[in-house]
Amino acid sequence: MSELIKQACDKSYEAWKSFKNASYATRKSLLENIATEIENLGDELIQTAMEETNLPEARLSGERARTCNQLRVYGKHVTDGYWAAAYIDTAIPDRKPLPKADIRKINQSIGPVVVFGASNFPFAYSTAGGDTASALAAGSTVLLKAHPAHLKTSKLVAKAISKALENLNLSQDIFIHIEETDFSAGKALVQHPNVKGVGFTGSHTGGMALVKYAQEREEPIPVFSEMGSINPVVILHENYDDALQMKVAQLAGAITLGVGQFCTNPGLILMLDGPVLEGVAAQLSEAISKSGVGKMLHPGIEKAYLENYKTALSQKGVELIARSSDVDLPGMAVVAKTSSENFLSNPKLHQEVFGPYSIIVACKDLEDLLNVYEHMEGQLTSSIFVEPGRFEVQQVFVDVMSVKAGRIIVNGVPTGVEVCHSMVHGGPYPSTTDGRFTSVGQDAILRWVRPVSYQNFENEVLPDGLKNANPLNIPRLVNGVWTSEGL
Amino acid sequence: MSELIKQACDKSYEAWKSFKNASYATRKSLLENIATEIENLGDELIQTAMEETNLPEARLSGERARTCNQLRVYGKHVTDGYWAAAYIDTAIPDRKPLPKADIRKINQSIGPVVVFGASNFPFAYSTAGGDTASALAAGSTVLLKAHPAHLKTSKLVAKAISKALENLNLSQDIFIHIEETDFSAGKALVQHPNVKGVGFTGSHTGGMALVKYAQEREEPIPVFSEMGSINPVVILHENYDDALQMKVAQLAGAITLGVGQFCTNPGLILMLDGPVLEGVAAQLSEAISKSGVGKMLHPGIEKAYLENYKTALSQKGVELIARSSDVDLPGMAVVAKTSSENFLSNPKLHQEVFGPYSIIVACKDLEDLLNVYEHMEGQLTSSIFVEPGRFEVQQVFVDVMSVKAGRIIVNGVPTGVEVCHSMVHGGPYPSTTDGRFTSVGQDAILRWVRPVSYQNFENEVLPDGLKNANPLNIPRLVNGVWTSEGL
Repeated sequence: MSELIKQACDKSYEAWKSFKNASYATRKSLLENIATEIENLGDELIQTAMEETNLPEARLSGERARTCNQLRVYGKHVTDGYWAAAYIDTAIPDRKPLPKADIRKINQSIGPVVVFGASNFPFAYSTAGGDTASALAAGSTVLLKAHPAHLKTSKLVAKAISKALENLNLSQDIFIHIEETDFSAGKALVQHPNVKGVGFTGSHTGGMALVKYAQEREEPIPVFSEMGSINPVVILHENYDDALQMKVAQLAGAITLGVGQFCTNPGLILMLDGPVLEGVAAQLSEAISKSGVGKMLHPGIEKAYLENYKTALSQKGVELIARSSDVDLPGMAVVAKTSSENFLSNPKLHQEVFGPYSIIVACKDLEDLLNVYEHMEGQLTSSIFVEPGRFEVQQVFVDVMSVKAGRIIVNGVPTGVEVCHSMVHGGPYPSTTDGRFTSVGQDAILRWVRPVSYQNFENEVLPDGLKNANPLNIPRLVNGVWTSEGL
Repeated sequence: MSELIKQACDKSYEAWKSFKNASYATRKSLLENIATEIENLGDELIQTAMEETNLPEARLSGERARTCNQLRVYGKHVTDGYWAAAYIDTAIPDRKPLPKADIRKINQSIGPVVVFGASNFPFAYSTAGGDTASALAAGSTVLLKAHPAHLKTSKLVAKAISKALENLNLSQDIFIHIEETDFSAGKALVQHPNVKGVGFTGSHTGGMALVKYAQEREEPIPVFSEMGSINPVVILHENYDDALQMKVAQLAGAITLGVGQFCTNPGLILMLDGPVLEGVAAQLSEAISKSGVGKMLHPGIEKAYLENYKTALSQKGVELIARSSDVDLPGMAVVAKTSSENFLSNPKLHQEVFGPYSIIVACKDLEDLLNVYEHMEGQLTSSIFVEPGRFEVQQVFVDVMSVKAGRIIVNGVPTGVEVCHSMVHGGPYPSTTDGRFTSVGQDAILRWVRPVSYQNFENEVLPDGLKNANPLNIPRLVNGVWTSEGL
């Protein structure tokens, strides 16, 4: 382990000992200050990110706005306070056979966490992205392993965070930017005893490597790896009509959006063989052919995409439906087609092809379609296109999807992950390592906390969230009833 | 893997596919029915448990009452419904730049779970104990690995559960009693792909073996092993006065309660050397000497206790203060004493001696005392005995204890784990494998659920908990505000 990593982990832990007790108001100010300082970076940030990631200006401006919004959302969420799950059970001294003590509990930070910046969201899931914002909101300090594909961008954002900490006279060690890009640095961070949690978005191989490092530790720690998903779209429409055409147009857009570089990219379309499928295939074919060839994030992703779609297309029984270029190019959109038998018998076709690629699977009947879905691995999302009112068939698919996926969408595409309370961006393995948590939306904070009980305490020594008067004005479960009133 | 285990896991999964959708009211009825059927077993249950566990009638009657109470508490908790974390964010079709879809989320069962019965709570943490009750409450089916030390008792309780399922016309496979007592059965259960979670209370070796089995799976699953703790008691009193004497009397009682066979048994007493320590030691010595020799749960525990306290007493610098028998006997209460230097330099003294054993560590000053505490591993509980109003010194210890322990008690003993909303029975590793959860109290249900998002759904297809009218009458977070009103 490099001396630099060791020192960073020690500093982070020292800073955490005080930051864990920072008031909710301070944490909110910090998150809001970071948002403002990121905005203050102005055009330099966008230009730097454009150079490093090939992403267009409009996308990056939008992503910056989303990132600053996320920071402010988590800020508000901290002071809203129900994430803290503050519970109070008051004493019953004369209870028989034994008296009952006053017991209270509240969520607190698990400790310093390591966040790995994601390449496909250089703002929103990188340096000051959702993992960092939710961890700071929880009262955790953050060791941020910068993504080598946008190191300059990451440094700029780290500078904004540093400025925000300075503005508030908070320790610079609350957020430490790790610029060592070699593989061993990540391992050393995950295995340092001071680190108590890990957030990662990226490949299956990368995510599971972190899990292995964490398992080798003396003390196990939670690793939240969000690793990918092929996001099945089940089309149940009985006619190829205007309503379906509008949805398929959306679907074509979702396949090519951002050169397909989203974890919610729809990589699999399941439907019955027949005239409706023919209509959908023809429409997708036309849209995809005309969709152009985008520039991907970095050469590593380009290379992997080229290899992966070629492998998929070379499988037995896989037919090319459309491609957006006559010659093989990275960033070229591809739609293929196969039968349910082929799909079921060939695990290679279940693998994510990260990029603008999707495959239609033609099924014999509804039972066959259901069977194909049930053979899928865990997914971030699953979607259904269906005529309104066809509740019975929807119910059947929703039931199996609720076992397999983190989010189910009816008549909509999986891309576009709303930052809101009810978002679940997380699903059963292998889409993530722990489907009990989300990495987008307010509840992402729950990955970084654990409850602590306080029994028989004098009011003065309790954490503020549990004091009688409810000075933080948060909702609390008092003797089984939610209230914001003091005792 | 034995054919019996395979069949059991398949049956459990089939039953789960329907039980996961059972209404909250049905789950409540099931839990209440189990409680009633356990009561209906009458004296036969108590007599059988007395024969198998050596526990006295009063203790077992009390534990049965606690167990039935737990079942009813989880039943009420299911219909109270806030564990479900039902969130609704309604659509904003005209939002700019993009419309917002209607998104809702709710917690659902993770799948069938395996519960390992604990030997030290033959009712409350065994067959129909807290793990089983919270899992059924969550909508999980249960594969119960009976504890070989009270197999007859376990069979009787399983019969009561079977009767309750029959009363409600529910599948017998919702609860499956596994009577294979060999080691390989437990491994096979944890490694079966149909199993999605594990609950265990017992030794560190046993608990970590289950974690290893789970890690070897293709799909990782959560393992909640509650593995033990030495539950430090820090005595900060400046005078050996009446108030302290009352607390020390309680402490002596807690050391010997139930022949020390509780995971919250206070195995370590930290205090400053000097006249107060002499008073405490003398009082404990007198109480312990007279405390008698209890009969332990089974020969395995007796053997381990004898070995472990002998090992502890044979360490350099460890002085025997009191023993409740002149000759070495299993079940004999033991109190020892050592210095902070000895304690810090000898990891053997940090290990749990499961039984009526405790060691006083004499510290040089407050800094030394704090240092000893900070060198402890993760604990279920930590306690402070202190004069009321000495807030400053309390705050210092509470701050470090909130990092190390799941529950902090002021002027009380750690034994006696209240079943209530604010209980945390769980702590940082190695006291448990996942300190973010509790195994006692209503929130124990959260170990067995994960959230699922529903986007753009017609009302008819939503889970009941998310339907517009709020037919389950549960509290829901609607656009960021908690309410029980319908939409």
